[in-house]
Amino acid sequence: VQVPPKATHQQTREHNERVIVRTVYELGPISRADIARQTNLTRTTVSDIIAELSGRGMVEEVGRGPSSGGKAPILLHLVGDSRQVIGLDLGEEYFTGALVNLRGEIRHSIQLPVQGCNGDEALSLVYRLCDQLVAAATGSLLGVGIGTPGVVDGSRGVIRWAVNLDWQDLPLADLIGRRYDLPVSLANDSQAAALAEFAFGDAPRVPNLIVIKVGRGVGAGIVLGGELFQGDGYAAGEIGHIGMVDDGVACRCGGVGCLETVASAPAIVRFARALAAETPGSLLLRSSRRQAELTLDDVRIAFEAGDPDARTAVLTAARHLGRAVAFLLGAMDVHRVLLHGSVTSLGQPWLDAVRDEARRRSLPLLAGRMHIDCVDARLPVVALGASAMLMTRDLGLSRFR
Amino acid sequence: VQVPPKATHQQTREHNERVIVRTVYELGPISRADIARQTNLTRTTVSDIIAELSGRGMVEEVGRGPSSGGKAPILLHLVGDSRQVIGLDLGEEYFTGALVNLRGEIRHSIQLPVQGCNGDEALSLVYRLCDQLVAAATGSLLGVGIGTPGVVDGSRGVIRWAVNLDWQDLPLADLIGRRYDLPVSLANDSQAAALAEFAFGDAPRVPNLIVIKVGRGVGAGIVLGGELFQGDGYAAGEIGHIGMVDDGVACRCGGVGCLETVASAPAIVRFARALAAETPGSLLLRSSRRQAELTLDDVRIAFEAGDPDARTAVLTAARHLGRAVAFLLGAMDVHRVLLHGSVTSLGQPWLDAVRDEARRRSLPLLAGRMHIDCVDARLPVVALGASAMLMTRDLGLSRFR
Repeated sequence: VQVPPKATHQQTREHNERVIVRTVYELGPISRADIARQTNLTRTTVSDIIAELSGRGMVEEVGRGPSSGGKAPILLHLVGDSRQVIGLDLGEEYFTGALVNLRGEIRHSIQLPVQGCNGDEALSLVYRLCDQLVAAATGSLLGVGIGTPGVVDGSRGVIRWAVNLDWQDLPLADLIGRRYDLPVSLANDSQAAALAEFAFGDAPRVPNLIVIKVGRGVGAGIVLGGELFQGDGYAAGEIGHIGMVDDGVACRCGGVGCLETVASAPAIVRFARALAAETPGSLLLRSSRRQAELTLDDVRIAFEAGDPDARTAVLTAARHLGRAVAFLLGAMDVHRVLLHGSVTSLGQPWLDAVRDEARRRSLPLLAGRMHIDCVDARLPVVALGASAMLMTRDLGLSRFR
Repeated sequence: VQVPPKATHQQTREHNERVIVRTVYELGPISRADIARQTNLTRTTVSDIIAELSGRGMVEEVGRGPSSGGKAPILLHLVGDSRQVIGLDLGEEYFTGALVNLRGEIRHSIQLPVQGCNGDEALSLVYRLCDQLVAAATGSLLGVGIGTPGVVDGSRGVIRWAVNLDWQDLPLADLIGRRYDLPVSLANDSQAAALAEFAFGDAPRVPNLIVIKVGRGVGAGIVLGGELFQGDGYAAGEIGHIGMVDDGVACRCGGVGCLETVASAPAIVRFARALAAETPGSLLLRSSRRQAELTLDDVRIAFEAGDPDARTAVLTAARHLGRAVAFLLGAMDVHRVLLHGSVTSLGQPWLDAVRDEARRRSLPLLAGRMHIDCVDARLPVVALGASAMLMTRDLGLSRFR
């Protein structure tokens, strides 16, 4: 039986320290008196804990605030670079790594092309990336956060299945943790992206949020009640393999007509190529020199130039995604959806079609309250989210809850 | 900013009382010493709180346990009927009410036919039901829990929209609360059913659970991490209006081809009737005397007798539901699904078809771990769940978390 245990002194102390760190983080620059007021803790407790945090370089004094009669109070803020985190995005084409500070600011970033390597080779590439980032750190390292495609068992730190990299049951957290003697957090890339939006995003804070990646694969990260929801088997948000089309093409998962086969970057390219092959003098095939290697960028350029085949391919894919969004929001009644990944480069007309289809297929009550937007494509959201995982776990630093 | 407040003495006291009540509930008969061991509380704290609970009639001594050397310890258990809750299920055809004790045992139950009444008339029927149950109570009443179809704002206690009863923005919790001077909890019927399974069900306790009602309407209640998940607008689980068929029939929600139009009881009856009308000498039409008033029971009887039209109608509906289950589980990675409502009376062949379709349409990894079952049809799950809401809120009594 699960009975909540009584709080011990040590737990109370740690809890109070977290409350203070979070208060300084959220409200700083802030005085000791205001921290005490905000947290309901005594002045003595606040002063003691601030002294300790200050000794560890995490908090510093930054001048004086306005006086409310007596002496002007000393203001404190959190030293962003007092701790840094390594955030990794083990993407399908590139492995990206970033040094992220406590404010979610990126201090250094590195991108290495995967070039089809997998298995042990891919693992070596992860080590190379980490080696360089460890060397570049200018603050004390808090740990390594890793986002990767596939099914990830975050609690054990094991990649259960990453089809592209040919990793099965790889204990990556353990391998990295022992090599660098640092704590490691591991999550699916879509789940990491959802955390990034939640922890560092510009959008107004909401408790429930779905972040959908649409690139080579399609997957979602789900934040519910301010926490990542991973499901019973860490596969929550694996919407890429929801069956969308009854007589569709075969999917790499073994199914038929999955969302990935109709809404992902390869699906759009495949569909555009098939349409263009039937079109004499196709703009799309002229603009991309080698038809066999047609890329999403080629389709985007043709789409922007008004090519009808590219247009059909892009908007059809958008509508399939919109339908899947309607399913998700209908089932979960979450109002805020963010999209990221290479397919979002198709821009406003693509986004409009996703939105329109999602609304058309939803209960009117829900349709009016939906917010579907794209994430700023310049942000390395997966690496940021991976680092947010660590900060949450180790410092309680984030805007969760 | 949300900063967790420091715990006060009063909160600690209440917390400890809840911990003790829950421990006696889950582990009783149990001695004071064992309660102290289980909860990490001191013997003095345990004895004080037990004395108070005993004074309020909630805990009583029930003999002595085995001695472990010294004096045999006095054992305590929770008096199930020391408190009772009124649980209401405002169903589409019947309003059902039950007096439920702290162990989820039903002490009395009443069913009143709705007979198409709505608006103020329907409200009077609710009062009649409550009047009778209040009069029948044999223990101190803890409050009233209400489950009702439609979109319900549980936090304000308002029924936002119940299409059948013609209720819009009805402050039902307030009305009932003032009439009987009791606390009232309100939830959607599917959400209440999910809570019942979670709080009182026989199945092994799992943190995540989806309970789907398939009757006149189709809706789901979602328990995540041991708590009811209601979504941003209290409409989580409203899967009845997910679009399943592109060229389907119009739904009462204004959409086309919704899950309700292909998997609910009226959908099965409609489909069976259409098929039978084309079949000379149809068993289904012979067995039901008046075709216009064909009911789900008629279809069930014909189905059990081997009528091919009934069979097609039932199994087609089951497969549509299976597809929706696959969507839900794919998106949320929840492994446990329970089905209830009138359509589950169609029995094993119907359930087998739902299961088969849900598995066929899911990732192999997920398909193997799915458990889809029917709730015991004899249990008034909505009324039980409505009472569980109250016990959770007011006593922390339940197996949540």
